[in-house]
Amino acid sequence: MKAIKDSVHDYVTLDAVAADLVDTPAFQRLRHVKQLSTVRLVFPSANHTRFEHSLGVYHLASQALDHLPVDDDTAAHVRAAALLHDAGHGPYGHQTERVIRRATGRDHDQIGWLLTDPEREVCATLERHGLDPERVAALVAGEGGVGQLVSGELDVDRMDYLVRDAHHTGVPYGTIDHGRLVRELRLDGTGGVDGAGDVDGAGRDADLVLAEGNVATAESLLLARSLMNAIVYRHHVSRVAGAMLERACERYLAVSETTPEEFRRMADHDLLVALRETVPELGRRIERRDLYKRAVWASLSDVPAGTVDADHEAERAAEREIADEAGLGPAQVIVDVPSRPGLKESSSSVVVDGVVQRLEDASELVSGLRAAERGRWRLGVYCPAEHRETVERAARDVLGVGTI
Amino acid sequence: MKAIKDSVHDYVTLDAVAADLVDTPAFQRLRHVKQLSTVRLVFPSANHTRFEHSLGVYHLASQALDHLPVDDDTAAHVRAAALLHDAGHGPYGHQTERVIRRATGRDHDQIGWLLTDPEREVCATLERHGLDPERVAALVAGEGGVGQLVSGELDVDRMDYLVRDAHHTGVPYGTIDHGRLVRELRLDGTGGVDGAGDVDGAGRDADLVLAEGNVATAESLLLARSLMNAIVYRHHVSRVAGAMLERACERYLAVSETTPEEFRRMADHDLLVALRETVPELGRRIERRDLYKRAVWASLSDVPAGTVDADHEAERAAEREIADEAGLGPAQVIVDVPSRPGLKESSSSVVVDGVVQRLEDASELVSGLRAAERGRWRLGVYCPAEHRETVERAARDVLGVGTI
Amino acid sequence: MKAIKDSVHDYVTLDAVAADLVDTPAFQRLRHVKQLSTVRLVFPSANHTRFEHSLGVYHLASQALDHLPVDDDTAAHVRAAALLHDAGHGPYGHQTERVIRRATGRDHDQIGWLLTDPEREVCATLERHGLDPERVAALVAGEGGVGQLVSGELDVDRMDYLVRDAHHTGVPYGTIDHGRLVRELRLDGTGGVDGAGDVDGAGRDADLVLAEGNVATAESLLLARSLMNAIVYRHHVSRVAGAMLERACERYLAVSETTPEEFRRMADHDLLVALRETVPELGRRIERRDLYKRAVWASLSDVPAGTVDADHEAERAAEREIADEAGLGPAQVIVDVPSRPGLKESSSSVVVDGVVQRLEDASELVSGLRAAERGRWRLGVYCPAEHRETVERAARDVLGVGTI
Amino acid sequence: MKAIKDSVHDYVTLDAVAADLVDTPAFQRLRHVKQLSTVRLVFPSANHTRFEHSLGVYHLASQALDHLPVDDDTAAHVRAAALLHDAGHGPYGHQTERVIRRATGRDHDQIGWLLTDPEREVCATLERHGLDPERVAALVAGEGGVGQLVSGELDVDRMDYLVRDAHHTGVPYGTIDHGRLVRELRLDGTGGVDGAGDVDGAGRDADLVLAEGNVATAESLLLARSLMNAIVYRHHVSRVAGAMLERACERYLAVSETTPEEFRRMADHDLLVALRETVPELGRRIERRDLYKRAVWASLSDVPAGTVDADHEAERAAEREIADEAGLGPAQVIVDVPSRPGLKESSSSVVVDGVVQRLEDASELVSGLRAAERGRWRLGVYCPAEHRETVERAARDVLGVGTI
Repeated sequence: MKAIKDSVHDYVTLDAVAADLVDTPAFQRLRHVKQLSTVRLVFPSANHTRFEHSLGVYHLASQALDHLPVDDDTAAHVRAAALLHDAGHGPYGHQTERVIRRATGRDHDQIGWLLTDPEREVCATLERHGLDPERVAALVAGEGGVGQLVSGELDVDRMDYLVRDAHHTGVPYGTIDHGRLVRELRLDGTGGVDGAGDVDGAGRDADLVLAEGNVATAESLLLARSLMNAIVYRHHVSRVAGAMLERACERYLAVSETTPEEFRRMADHDLLVALRETVPELGRRIERRDLYKRAVWASLSDVPAGTVDADHEAERAAEREIADEAGLGPAQVIVDVPSRPGLKESSSSVVVDGVVQRLEDASELVSGLRAAERGRWRLGVYCPAEHRETVERAARDVLGVGTI
Repeated sequence: MKAIKDSVHDYVTLDAVAADLVDTPAFQRLRHVKQLSTVRLVFPSANHTRFEHSLGVYHLASQALDHLPVDDDTAAHVRAAALLHDAGHGPYGHQTERVIRRATGRDHDQIGWLLTDPEREVCATLERHGLDPERVAALVAGEGGVGQLVSGELDVDRMDYLVRDAHHTGVPYGTIDHGRLVRELRLDGTGGVDGAGDVDGAGRDADLVLAEGNVATAESLLLARSLMNAIVYRHHVSRVAGAMLERACERYLAVSETTPEEFRRMADHDLLVALRETVPELGRRIERRDLYKRAVWASLSDVPAGTVDADHEAERAAEREIADEAGLGPAQVIVDVPSRPGLKESSSSVVVDGVVQRLEDASELVSGLRAAERGRWRLGVYCPAEHRETVERAARDVLGVGTI
Repeated sequence: MKAIKDSVHDYVTLDAVAADLVDTPAFQRLRHVKQLSTVRLVFPSANHTRFEHSLGVYHLASQALDHLPVDDDTAAHVRAAALLHDAGHGPYGHQTERVIRRATGRDHDQIGWLLTDPEREVCATLERHGLDPERVAALVAGEGGVGQLVSGELDVDRMDYLVRDAHHTGVPYGTIDHGRLVRELRLDGTGGVDGAGDVDGAGRDADLVLAEGNVATAESLLLARSLMNAIVYRHHVSRVAGAMLERACERYLAVSETTPEEFRRMADHDLLVALRETVPELGRRIERRDLYKRAVWASLSDVPAGTVDADHEAERAAEREIADEAGLGPAQVIVDVPSRPGLKESSSSVVVDGVVQRLEDASELVSGLRAAERGRWRLGVYCPAEHRETVERAARDVLGVGTI
Repeated sequence: MKAIKDSVHDYVTLDAVAADLVDTPAFQRLRHVKQLSTVRLVFPSANHTRFEHSLGVYHLASQALDHLPVDDDTAAHVRAAALLHDAGHGPYGHQTERVIRRATGRDHDQIGWLLTDPEREVCATLERHGLDPERVAALVAGEGGVGQLVSGELDVDRMDYLVRDAHHTGVPYGTIDHGRLVRELRLDGTGGVDGAGDVDGAGRDADLVLAEGNVATAESLLLARSLMNAIVYRHHVSRVAGAMLERACERYLAVSETTPEEFRRMADHDLLVALRETVPELGRRIERRDLYKRAVWASLSDVPAGTVDADHEAERAAEREIADEAGLGPAQVIVDVPSRPGLKESSSSVVVDGVVQRLEDASELVSGLRAAERGRWRLGVYCPAEHRETVERAARDVLGVGTI
């Protein structure tokens, strides 16, 4: 079997399906999509891509499957889904996800279009190995019991990205004990967690849970995410660059002939060149890390609920209004309102005293973490450094945000 | 300058005082006192000693001092205190601390007896280099502003042991960003945290705080401790072995001619041999990891307050009563009641919006962590495997503990 | 001082000059030039860039300077040179170096053009901080005693790339003890290696040597390089892709309007897009890792000396001749003749019994390593998979290479 | 299956035999035998024991067996042998091996006495699981084809200790790519290395070889060993302490009632206490790292062949003679003559162009490494610091060693 050296998991051994899928253009493209997009402007070592991350997710899924009672055919589908789970990402990954969703109505994990199109090599490769592309696409979307292994509160996706992002940023907090996590996953059917017979071999009617004695292990996943959010993923410099990138992409789609379907198949390098040429003011700034600065950086308690819950249209209208009031062009003000804080992992399932419980019920930590996430939420308004004071005044006025 | 290779911090460079202190018998003895005592019966790679830990604490103290406005003489005293902070530990460190305290009235960080005794080399070495042994002893006890660097909520002691224990157990959760922590420490005097002049050069009237923007960094210290507690430090196998060791030491002191003062100067190997010879039943079991099993393992809500707060006498009386009721010898039952859960680090100080705050006020996480610590508290009753059922019945009766 | 988190050296602390230099477009461009270019097609985690490598070299230079007797002004120049030492690299670094040399006559470490041009920000930044751009350029080229720290047999450049490439590929052999190396460097003047006064503060008339007791340390540098050569840097897949890239660049320069000066300032993403659009056959293959295969892979003893020493013209002529004989287009055959094997580090200087010696004289290993390097030398001829047999026959004929 | 957390290999999963063997007193004793004995006096983090090393060897053997064509019964025997391979070590491992050999005629890997004695639990445990103790003992001694996996030029023993010693000392050079090595091992029977049928399932008539394309991998093993020898294993401080320990053990056996059989079953802590009590002058010095110093440190070319090849009797006679001439007691002079340099790994087998070759024939490096080992050989004469000059003169005279 083919083995690929990985700096996180050492050797990743590929089965025959995986070896062929890796060679498709759709998968090779992931070499050119960075995992952490604009985060690398703060943590310069973080240049890893969705290519090796996808190999890592495949690796962890294979390990977890070795401990789960699923039949070989199901395991083969899950492994393929794990490998392909990010193939639907556009350039710069999550940073362009909202742009693509507004334009196409699809998220990065809805990849039926990619997997089931007979003209594409991925579909042909899956079928050549006797796999059902529709079923793989459903697993990528997290459907069914074992689908939660690919996309769910305890999925191997987050296990890989936490340790990989820690390895590459140098920030240790993502380094979880994935070795223990993949061993302790169980499929809980209707009749218990003893792994004996109640679960059908295809893992459909089951839930993915952590075995007895793993509350602290489950908590460690949440804590890792929460600290990585605070220190890495939501670092303000990365957020400023990400917001600039999103605006630049919107304008690029508006003025160029590139369709949303073409856009989502671009890679990072294509986008960087396209933005520089088509939306030069923002494109060049992103390329050179010559970023806007924060004019406003407000916590949840300082922002009116209406502003927190503003939709995209309202956000853009506010931008225009602020720019107007500050006497600037509309491209010079960016309003960045993150969605309300949440912690998806808090509903993961753990066995406690023989009973499957949601982590938020089994752990006293979860409410504290939720509060911490709320405390870290920030609304940002960004603009060129020289206009900060004018924009701050205008933004506070338009958005109803209190003084810092 | 002499440099020692360390597997955690790479090279630890020693100043002239440290180089001489390292050569004293009192410091060399730390080579023979393991950092995690009975934890290594669960995590077999964890054989590191207080020798290299002390070098690590010295190293981090030196780094922190490079960023703090203290005069050279104070810095020299703090570095010496950091190096010597664990020289007062008895064999098996914390596991014999209560035995020693009951016999001598002193804790491991009260080391005036060791540092100021003119017959000992440590005292002579300090004085030869112009350092005041009394002042070093006071710093080891955490007195004064910079003393908190050696012993306090933000001390470099815990930074070193967290990362070192993670490195040696293989459990990642202790791996904090100590590089950031030592850079972000400040001395907060009466007039602010700008480091400009309000603090006297000897750092006496100041508090050790983390600079602005480090709430998540401070939280990471707590989280690391909490997860390491749950998974490593309070693993039930280590607790059982530790309780057996404590009982064996009590009996050893009772039946041998070794005085408490001699006892505290023993090293791990001395104790292991002495226990095997003097208290063979327990001593041999500890050596061969042939441990008692848990007859009772009860959470806080199942244990009457009187039992939780029982003092040493009451604990031993209960042991005898249970053994009696179960028809066993007194050495065959161990009652292990940990102190009430707490998190010392939660009162560490962080600057938020220019104001020094206690972490528990600045962080929403602390109360969640406290609750988690409470949830993990367990009373244990241990005995030879073959008597578990009898002992369980007797113990529940005597201690008033509800059914599991 | 500004500190940047690095996954290899933890925190890299920047002085004021460095902080400003990092913000120049010429340095930010290095974010978009990968350190290992085509190696990442074999080791997918190896996506690190010359940006963080340059920070690492700056960091190690600073550490080494702490132990060397040079004046502050010299140290400031050396640190700036360390930071900027790779700013002259074209897209894909060494893979385009020969193309650029043929077109401009300059290597990547001749960067007077970049540092001394008053219209560029780098020059202005250096002068604003009182540094002499000409002197920095000379240090980048390795001139003078301390220049060897930036470019020489014992330079910190190779120390950083060895450990960094090991970290990112996952192949451990580059992990040298750089902590020891930077502490053990000395400047050897006319009168000895005791560091006492013979060397002028500007380190001009001195040589960089390793102090007594470091023959094995010096050997470890050679061994690390040799094993990384064998396993990573000269992996055949990376060589095939690199050769395809070089040919594609030549054609791109021939058919596009891009001048060599513009070309050398492109970044990886620019080149990838430009090649795909201008030289689509090769460009698309490189992007998708759809590579040529080896038709010939011959060791030194099977290749006539004339072929080994063929210059670029002769190499291209042979390509055309082989393609002709095989009935293929000229773009479908690539002849790849590496330069003769050598080990630059073997002439590094080490103090043995008080005398400065060249490593090749002090170490018995060097000749063995040289022989190993010769044994690993391979001439390659590459072509599309389907033409391998035809091309092999033609190539053996044209190049006079014996049968494998 | 039981899994044990290891700081080097993460989780080591034990089969049923291993889980039971680990619980025997003979195996638990390995918790108290340090892997690197006196090396930790130089590298203080190196406190790891033969307990976790043995788990690591078991782990690597299991992985290698997954890729080898041996039947289940053979694999079970090999795994047991891997786990038990060091159970025959005396206290302080290799440091007492010569003492034990002279007293009992047996080396640490001749453990029939331990495995086949029906009164011992190890024998009973093996038989209870259907394993043949004699066969396990033969495998520990390296007999037969697969026995080379446990003890041979390519055994997993050295793979584990190299990476483990690197991890714990902090010296990186032992960090080999064991993941690749265990995958690339093959059993070469009479008819080829294709793994197809020529080898009998019990792996008896086969040789352990590295598959095609692994010359550099095989070299990396040698290089790692050679550099670890130079920097770690043969550090002069460790050699001085080791020689003092050996002399102390000889005297202890001479004056105490402990038999050699009892001696070999002692653990480190037993020996440390016994030496301090029975041979106090040396015992206390070892415990406190108050070591003898080098009076002579001579390379191979300065030592007469007769001295290099002196046997134990001659060595001790020389000691007495030197002590006499210097006017000292016999315990105050130690002559330490290592065996002639060699590199066992150089005869490991590698497949090159389809043919199994010895590494020394396939690699140009080996002769260089041999020369380097010769160059690093040193004869040492040690004594208390205050007698260095007198002892040097006497030693040079008695041993015929040239001036340094």
